[in-house]
Amino acid sequence: VKTTAADLPTLRWVGDSDGCLTLIDQTLLPTELREIECHDAATVWEAIKSLRVRGAPAIGIAAAYGVCVALRGASDSDVLARLDTACDYLATSRPTAVNLFWALDRMRAVGQSMQGKPAAQVRARLLAEARAIHADDQRICREIGRIGAELLCDGQGVLTHCNAGGLATADYGTALAVMFAAEEQGKRLRVFADETRPLLQGARLTAWELQQRGIDVTLICDSMAAQVMREGRVQAVVTGADRIAANGDTANKIGTYSVAVLAEAHGIPFYVAAPVSTFDLTLDSGEQIPIEERDPREITHGFGRETAPAGVKVYNPAFDVTPARLIAAIICEAGVIRPVSREQIATVVGQRKA
Amino acid sequence: VKTTAADLPTLRWVGDSDGCLTLIDQTLLPTELREIECHDAATVWEAIKSLRVRGAPAIGIAAAYGVCVALRGASDSDVLARLDTACDYLATSRPTAVNLFWALDRMRAVGQSMQGKPAAQVRARLLAEARAIHADDQRICREIGRIGAELLCDGQGVLTHCNAGGLATADYGTALAVMFAAEEQGKRLRVFADETRPLLQGARLTAWELQQRGIDVTLICDSMAAQVMREGRVQAVVTGADRIAANGDTANKIGTYSVAVLAEAHGIPFYVAAPVSTFDLTLDSGEQIPIEERDPREITHGFGRETAPAGVKVYNPAFDVTPARLIAAIICEAGVIRPVSREQIATVVGQRKA
Repeated sequence: VKTTAADLPTLRWVGDSDGCLTLIDQTLLPTELREIECHDAATVWEAIKSLRVRGAPAIGIAAAYGVCVALRGASDSDVLARLDTACDYLATSRPTAVNLFWALDRMRAVGQSMQGKPAAQVRARLLAEARAIHADDQRICREIGRIGAELLCDGQGVLTHCNAGGLATADYGTALAVMFAAEEQGKRLRVFADETRPLLQGARLTAWELQQRGIDVTLICDSMAAQVMREGRVQAVVTGADRIAANGDTANKIGTYSVAVLAEAHGIPFYVAAPVSTFDLTLDSGEQIPIEERDPREITHGFGRETAPAGVKVYNPAFDVTPARLIAAIICEAGVIRPVSREQIATVVGQRKA
Repeated sequence: VKTTAADLPTLRWVGDSDGCLTLIDQTLLPTELREIECHDAATVWEAIKSLRVRGAPAIGIAAAYGVCVALRGASDSDVLARLDTACDYLATSRPTAVNLFWALDRMRAVGQSMQGKPAAQVRARLLAEARAIHADDQRICREIGRIGAELLCDGQGVLTHCNAGGLATADYGTALAVMFAAEEQGKRLRVFADETRPLLQGARLTAWELQQRGIDVTLICDSMAAQVMREGRVQAVVTGADRIAANGDTANKIGTYSVAVLAEAHGIPFYVAAPVSTFDLTLDSGEQIPIEERDPREITHGFGRETAPAGVKVYNPAFDVTPARLIAAIICEAGVIRPVSREQIATVVGQRKA
């Protein structure tokens, strides 16, 4: 099945508080555009774990709505206990993106403020909160795009890694929002998309999104980024983030650190675009960010075919941490953080997080 | 079909000068170990083009034997003309690895020295020459291994990219020979094998060879090399080469340049292991090395599944050039070239090439 339109939202809530979370199954893209319905927390948990929905902001939104489906049929007496259980459970789906925990904490706090209220009222309020998280992210994407677009110039080559686009957020992305907004301003870019092994989010999702929006995109293997830089085809790198520590160290999809080192070696600025919710100011540095290790079969059986010898040892970290010193600027809805220092982050982000 | 033994040679000649070239079809590894027989030049050409046989030294040997199969049925009057045609034809199979042209030149020169001789005699002499190229490479692999092993220490982590092992040569490789020889000397290594997109020679071939020989190997995606270096798991990088210019600039599988930049950024020595036949002293620098671009489908349809949107633009250079300044030493059968400079190359290699 070929798809030609991307009119479907990445995720949406259908119905009232007895409704369900519907999301694009991103594991099927780009050859098939199909939604799945989540009527219980286990389905949401599995969708996050299996990367049917992925991208730090989208994971946060999915988890918030996941809390809502988990409370179907809750009684006045058990609704808050079930809320706690649902938050604890959904928090185990993936460890690195902090937006997941941030969204669940926000849902939990709303519930706790409604002690003694009837279940129907609690559930309606929680759905409103999930919708607010969702709507906030839409607005934030546009702000990040508008702010970040100033950093790009007409005619530039821009490299990105993994997918920080519409499929990772509620609107048109973080890193990709910067490119989309620049194009809206009339700047013409040449984008290079790293395919992003093992799960090929760059090839399957980023290339698809850019193609859908008519932006000049060239797909490369991750190992080609250095060569493309050396050939002078890239003037900026922009990626998303899964968690940013107080000092600016940034966890993002495995391979991001590699791109950052290569960008520095070629004198190319490396930018991170992420919402304020991606900052985790409780962590002093990136060393404290938990890094998910995933199934070796993502590498050995990645393409539906066995491409490595049986029983071979595999190392499959899903993320790496790019040290702040390699990041020219972080673009968030509160502004451009430059230089990327503890002080500058505290100034720009600290107030919004408080 | 699972294979448990690697007792088959990468390629072999079967029979007398009316015999055929038999080689392992490396596109089927590691899940299937199967040989194909080449009875004509077109089959050899296709085997090289499609990477059924690959690796600079193995390509040279295959081409030499390819000349022999091309001369089946030649008459006294046309044998030398057919030799020329066969050499010209086989030279078009792949552009980057210089061993291909070197081997064909060697075959052509032998033929030219036999003007007026009967076809049977010419063909017998050419087969002897191909066998000599083959036997030389076996000896050279062992020498490279012995010489290079001195650069590795017990307990080290060693990273390699692509496959420069037994499947790329007539014996046990160039880069991998260094590791095999170190292990024979009682040094225990922990090897990290980049999977090497797009065609996964690292996952399919290098991991398999190391596993077959009982060496501790961990498979990673190309994008993970930087992270593995940052974690202190790698103390040396060793790769092969497809062509080395007079100044030491080295063409090798795409992604090698990336690894070299990353190694420098982490203070890790980057070594190249290659036979003298890989040097092309007619080229002043790496800028003059022709870089093969291959079918976009290697990236978009890598392993039997479509993993990118239809019609997406793709850049697929099969090789890159690592500048000499990033190479700590080149290991060849004539010794260790260090520093990698025009002068040192001329001293160590120049005489053998003359």
